[in-house]
Formats: sequence, structure tokens, C-alpha cells
Amino acid sequence: MKGMELLTDLYELTMMQVYMKTGILHNYAIFDMFFRKNPFNSGYVVFAGLEQLIDYLENLSFSKDSIDYLYSLHIFSDDFLDYCKSFRFTGSIYSFQEGDVVFPEEPIIRVEAPLGQAQLIETALLNCINFQSLIATKAARVCLAAKGRQVIEFGLRRAQGPDGGLSASRASFIGGCIGTSNVLAGKMYGIPVKGTHAHSFVMAYNTEIEAFNNYTKVFPDSSILLVDTYDTVHSGIVNAIVAAKELEASGKRLVGIRLDSGNLAELSKKVRKLLDDENLEYVKIVASNDLDEFRIDELLRQGAPIDVFGVGTRLATGYSESALSGVYKMAAIEKDGTLIPKMKVSDEMSKGTIPSRKNVYRYYDSDNTMCFDIICQDDEIVLDGDVYDIKGNRFAVDRDLVSRCMHTPIFQNGTLVYSKPSIQEIQHHCIVSLQSLPENLKDLYNPDEYQVYISPKLFNLLQSMRTVLHNKID
Amino acid sequence: MKGMELLTDLYELTMMQVYMKTGILHNYAIFDMFFRKNPFNSGYVVFAGLEQLIDYLENLSFSKDSIDYLYSLHIFSDDFLDYCKSFRFTGSIYSFQEGDVVFPEEPIIRVEAPLGQAQLIETALLNCINFQSLIATKAARVCLAAKGRQVIEFGLRRAQGPDGGLSASRASFIGGCIGTSNVLAGKMYGIPVKGTHAHSFVMAYNTEIEAFNNYTKVFPDSSILLVDTYDTVHSGIVNAIVAAKELEASGKRLVGIRLDSGNLAELSKKVRKLLDDENLEYVKIVASNDLDEFRIDELLRQGAPIDVFGVGTRLATGYSESALSGVYKMAAIEKDGTLIPKMKVSDEMSKGTIPSRKNVYRYYDSDNTMCFDIICQDDEIVLDGDVYDIKGNRFAVDRDLVSRCMHTPIFQNGTLVYSKPSIQEIQHHCIVSLQSLPENLKDLYNPDEYQVYISPKLFNLLQSMRTVLHNKID
Repeated sequence: MKGMELLTDLYELTMMQVYMKTGILHNYAIFDMFFRKNPFNSGYVVFAGLEQLIDYLENLSFSKDSIDYLYSLHIFSDDFLDYCKSFRFTGSIYSFQEGDVVFPEEPIIRVEAPLGQAQLIETALLNCINFQSLIATKAARVCLAAKGRQVIEFGLRRAQGPDGGLSASRASFIGGCIGTSNVLAGKMYGIPVKGTHAHSFVMAYNTEIEAFNNYTKVFPDSSILLVDTYDTVHSGIVNAIVAAKELEASGKRLVGIRLDSGNLAELSKKVRKLLDDENLEYVKIVASNDLDEFRIDELLRQGAPIDVFGVGTRLATGYSESALSGVYKMAAIEKDGTLIPKMKVSDEMSKGTIPSRKNVYRYYDSDNTMCFDIICQDDEIVLDGDVYDIKGNRFAVDRDLVSRCMHTPIFQNGTLVYSKPSIQEIQHHCIVSLQSLPENLKDLYNPDEYQVYISPKLFNLLQSMRTVLHNKID
Repeated sequence: MKGMELLTDLYELTMMQVYMKTGILHNYAIFDMFFRKNPFNSGYVVFAGLEQLIDYLENLSFSKDSIDYLYSLHIFSDDFLDYCKSFRFTGSIYSFQEGDVVFPEEPIIRVEAPLGQAQLIETALLNCINFQSLIATKAARVCLAAKGRQVIEFGLRRAQGPDGGLSASRASFIGGCIGTSNVLAGKMYGIPVKGTHAHSFVMAYNTEIEAFNNYTKVFPDSSILLVDTYDTVHSGIVNAIVAAKELEASGKRLVGIRLDSGNLAELSKKVRKLLDDENLEYVKIVASNDLDEFRIDELLRQGAPIDVFGVGTRLATGYSESALSGVYKMAAIEKDGTLIPKMKVSDEMSKGTIPSRKNVYRYYDSDNTMCFDIICQDDEIVLDGDVYDIKGNRFAVDRDLVSRCMHTPIFQNGTLVYSKPSIQEIQHHCIVSLQSLPENLKDLYNPDEYQVYISPKLFNLLQSMRTVLHNKID
């Protein structure tokens, strides 16, 4: 991911120039990335996009072209552009791992770097993480709704740009899809590529049966025939059965048929019976057409005998919610060698932030089920005393649980210290994460809320800073 | 846009291999791109993305890497991969122009090419056009709602991937935005870049007034101060007024203040009064925070004195509708030297297609207001007789109107014959297109439906083909 240094909001660069002029450009600062609300009325979010963030940070430097462009804007001073010329990311990053389930308000990524660097990377960081996490979450929901049936991602043609399609394929695989139709995503990320054929294929021949037979002859081991170009029940399935029998005669088997329109529950039942009556029980039914987790759940409740779901538009774009609203906020800044915790208050209470260098611990019971998370100050080793929720309510929690620190070092002083897992490993990690999530949190319609607490030390800091800021303003 | 040859669904490639084996790979075929439903309950769509499609087609060839990857899938035969090695797009493209308003069912892009080529490009074509047209439409709606006030696109951090952000910036500018915060989009597309500063900027200094004064000192001619980090009315605006007065003392003027939370209608009125009371009438009010066309319309109805709108997430992703559901369907294919019109029927009536080589004529009255479009066969020069709507209802239309042919040649036999306009020209073309659209079609909530008719010759063909297909199936 070279050439991405200008993938940033203009204000990151103008702020950096002011930081330089006022002598704080290199003051050490801490920023957190977090989100405030689960998308899709979901009980969780699946974290994804870290690998692209790593690639961006490893390649972050200003080309001559970029410097020339910035110069042409007549906004930036020569000394600032000189600084850009030698820019490298020398900070540290601590992060959840891709495939982890994450929750509102907890710091998912912590950036510790000279202020100018920490500021510059805000936009690209949010761009990578917000989108891939959105789609990985959607994919996890779709795959959970499919209850073990296969889900393939078909979204490229409706995705938000070429890279929107590529990132969506990657995140969909992390969330549990078994493959994608997107060939470039297959090549770039090592995701299995899958496909059937289009209506135009059937229309390219004189008759439907001619089209089917031509396809199965070329791909005798992997044919899935689309049966709704003219009429599913009266034409498509009749011809598919003929093609399947011809394949059988040559010692091969038709893999499946695909339904792409009409009442999928009703049609799949009819088609299953027609196939079974011809002893074609092995022929799978693949369904597509604006599917999402809700439609899949409804189809399965109606007893639709569908084996594989092809999910496109509503997966690759998030559909009902097209963005995860992750934000990136300052938590502390160095002044005269001391780290000063910082917080934002707001006219909207919900837009406040949690100050200081923080970590997240996750607590599991003996069944390896997740119980709650605690956000604490990074130097708190032993948690004692009661904890608080974001609104200030006090809770006594059971501490005889297994805990895991969720912040993994990714970069330390500019050096990558994290060994990037394969996409298969990330998918596996996601599946394990979802398995440890309580069932009531995975409900498609009305999930419970996972508890994310604040440590007593952090809560005291938050309270005292709120008081100080309040007094200042009054 | 090099290296995009694999940005395609796997099935395009597998179908091509079957076309090769059955000897029809090079048969001339015609495909149409169209959509069936306006997004956002809008009365129109703004067409965009053509320039990226042109770039894709001009650069379309298979690298050794791509061939090696396809080989590794064990799906493709050696002769097919040899064909890929010498692949070039040699077809013709006829298209609406970027910035044109377009309507459901009409062919926006017509591809005429050897079957294999026309098939391969389907996915990338839809990916480019669907997304950019979606965002250009959203931008047009947002800008119309702003009634002449400036709109700036701020969406990169919530956009769907890096390219999702870039394409969104481009399409937003086409739809009427005056600039973007996305610096890379500024560089790549020549769009003006704009910005203010972040909350973190205020938090990086000891006090808000220190932050404001530092910013205005570095950017005395272009400062917009964000006033809601701590408390908009009691702190932010008070300090902004102090900073504005200091600027005045040095002979400069504060450009504006930005509101990013709270009740924007109420706050903007309070802030306007506080500024005016200090003779700072010239200081503009910029508002942001999850804005879209509906919120802007509501704010203006409430009399909010906002001068500039910063629109992010809900513009750059489409928000409530994250995809334009454009499709690409075969309209005709050559057989033994004759062009055979083709159509798809379907279990869902709405999923049928219109056969044959088609063009679109747009009719204007003497005020240059658009009256209706007629889809006709490409060789129909004079339209006579009544026309039909898509459901088969007959209409008599006034033919004493000025008509314009909407299909412009873009490629002819693989050669680009279109002179690509600048993005400023495209934006201007969009503004002119929207001006010629009747007012009742631009209503934000309940627009009227624009009439798209089918010519009598085309209607007769459609009817006769439906009858033939119906008889075949029964």
C-alpha cells in the first residue's frame, strides 16, 4: 500500500503545521480508536482491517509528487514540507487482533507516537478499521444465521469501488464466508474463489439445455446451473435434470443448481422434490438474490432446503448500515516530560472520551465463555475494588475468572513486532471468538448487551477531570 | 488503473472458457447497463463513473502474475490462458455522459463487443458505475437541500476502503460539492481540498484559547475554529470571539467557526447572535455531525443560520442505501452473421429485460425542461406512432419537442473516440442537467416519476419475443 500518504483529511496536515510552529510536533501523545455503538443492532463487532493498517504504516513516506502537490496548495511552509520529506512512523501501536469480538467504548487500537505522527495517521486508520470491521461483523451475522450452511460472498459489482470490493471480500472471509466471487481478492488475499454462471450465459445459446450441457461439458466436476433465466420450474429445473442425467452417464455429478429470483422458500422446496424424485439427492441448492442475515433466517424458519447462500450487495456494503462510526481521540499528551491525561467533554454527553493510557482485560469463566471486559489504566496489574459502567454505576464483579489482556503490541518505536497471521488463522480466531461469546449476545434481533466496565482507578481519574473541566467552564 | 484485469467475478472467466470451447467467444454481442429503481426514493440518478470505466478498459490486459494465478486455480485450460495473454478490449461503448440525470430501465451504457470481452468487463463496469452514480446522486440531493449554501465532503474516515473514499470524493464533487477533505482525492482528481481542525487539536494545548490563537496565527487567512470540544456556548464561542478580535487587530478576519455536536439549529442561532453582537457578522457558521439531505432540509426549515455544511458518513457511503443496483444484461448476440435480439424473462416480472440494440432520446420543451425519454431501437430515426410504458400502457406524446440522443460514442472498435471532460466540466454538466429537470422530480420526499417510454417498434419486438418464449416454456 504505497502512495497512501495523502489518504488523509487536509486538517491533519494543517494541524501538524501548527504543532510544528508551536513546538509540540514531537511531543509524545496517546490516541485511542473506539466506536460508540454496535452496527446492525448487533451484540458485538468483529475487529478487522489491522493488516491493511500495518501495510499503510510500514509504507508511510512522502513521495516527491506528494510534496509537490502539497506545495502547490500554498498552505504549507517550506520547513513543514522539509519535515514531511523525512517523515517515517516511529511510534508504537497496541491493538486487539483481527477476528476478536469487540464492544462499544473500549479502546481497540492505542497509538503512542510523536503528536504529528499520531495525528497524520488518524484518517487512514479509521478508514481501514471502520470498513473492514463493519463487513466482518455483517459476515459473522450472516454466517451465524446460515447455521453451518456455506456462505459465499458475491458483492463486487455492488461494492463501493474496486477496493471497497476487495476489502469486503477479505473481511467477509474473516467473518466466516468460505469464499468469494472476486478473483482479484482471491489472488491478493489467498481466499478461495467460487462461482456459477450468469443469465447472459444461458441467453448466449439457442436453448437453455444447450447452455447447460455446454457448461457441464467444460466443467464436469464443478458445475452449478442457474435455473431462472426463463422459468425456474417449467424450464430451468427440467433442463438441469436432463443435464445432470447426462453428466451421470459420463460418470460425473452435477454439483448444484442456483435460484436467483422468485419465492426462494417455495421454489427451493419444489426444486428439491423434483431433484429427489429423479434420485438427484446429491445436487445442492444454491440461493442468491438480495440475501442477508434476516432473509436467511426467515428462509430457514420456513424450512427452505437451501445448502449454500450467495450473498452480495447486502454483505459487501453493510446495506442497512453502511459505516461503523469508529472514532480516534486523544487520551494523553506529554508536556515538559510528563504525560498529561486528556479528555473531551461535549454538549452531547455520549460524545465524551475516557482519558489516559489504557488497556482492556477480558474475563472468561471455566467454560471459556466471555463474562465481561474491564478498561483500566495501562499500569494497573491487579484489579481490586468495584468497577463502574460508563454512566458511573458501580458493580461488584467476580474476579476468580481467567483474564486475558487484549492489547497486543503491533509496532514498538516504529518497528513491527507482530507476526501477521494468515487469513485462514484470522478466520479461525474469529470463529473461536464467536464461540466464546454468550449465546444471548448472538441473537439476530434482540441481543443482550455485553458488559464493559471501567476500573476504579480510571473511574476516579475520569470523575476528577470532569470536575476540573466543569469548574473551568463555569 | 492497471492490474484490474482480475477485478471480476470468477464466473465471467469460466463462462468465457465455455464460450471458447463452443466456438462463440468472438461472436458479436450487445449488453446494456441499467438499473431498475431510483435509490433514496429519489426522482432521478446522476450518472457517474464513466472516466474510471474508460481507464479500466484502456488498461485491460493480463499480466504474467495474473495468468500464473489463474493457472494455479486448476480451472482454466492452456488455450484459454493463451487467449487471455493477448486479450485487449476491441469493442465499442455508447454511453450517457457523466453528470447526466438518468432513470430506471433505460440503457445507460451499451457495450458492443466480441462476447468474451463483453462478458469479462461486466463486474468492473458495474462496480465503477453503481457506486459513483449512487454517491453523485446523494451529493446532488444534499446540495439541492442546502439551497445554494456550500457543501464540503468529509467522508474519508467512514468510507468503504481507501478507494471507496476516493471515488466518493470524486462523485460528490460531480453532484455539486465544492470540495473534499480528502487530500489524495484533491491530488488525483483536481478537486479543491478543504478543512478545519479536530477536537484533538484543542486538547493538544493547555487551553482552548491557546489552541485557537495558535491556529489563527499560522493560518490568518483561512481559519475555521471548532468550538465544541468543551462547551460550545460557555467556552468555545467565547474563545473564538477573542481569537477573532485578535485577528482583526492584526488586520485579518476569522473565516468561520464549526459546530459538530448538540442541537445545531438552536446552537447556530445562539452563536450567530453572539458573533453579530460583537460585529463579527462576516464570520461564517460551518456545521457537521451526521448530516444528510433530510437533516439539512430540517435545519433550514428551522431557520438555522448555517453557511456551510460538512457532510461525511451519510454522503460518502450512501448511508440508508449503500448500493445502486445497476445490472448488465445481454440484449443481442450474433449467430451466423445475424444479430439475434435476446431477452430474459423471470419468475419476478420486474426482472425481465428489453431486447435488441437500443438508444435513448430525451425530449425537451421550449423552456429547456425535460419532458420524457424514449427508448428505441438504434436504427429508428423518426419516431412515429404512440409509445408505451414498461407495463405496456399506450401513450400519445407531443413530438414537437427538441430531442437529444443520449448515447455518445466512447470507444469504437477498441479506440477511445471520446474526449474526456475535466471534473469541473462534469460538475457543470450535472448542474445544467438538474436545472432542466422539472421541479416536482427534485422533491426530497415525494418526487414525481419521470416518464421513460418504449418506442412502438421496440414494444412490438418485446411483445412478440415474450409470446415466443412463453410458448416455448408451456
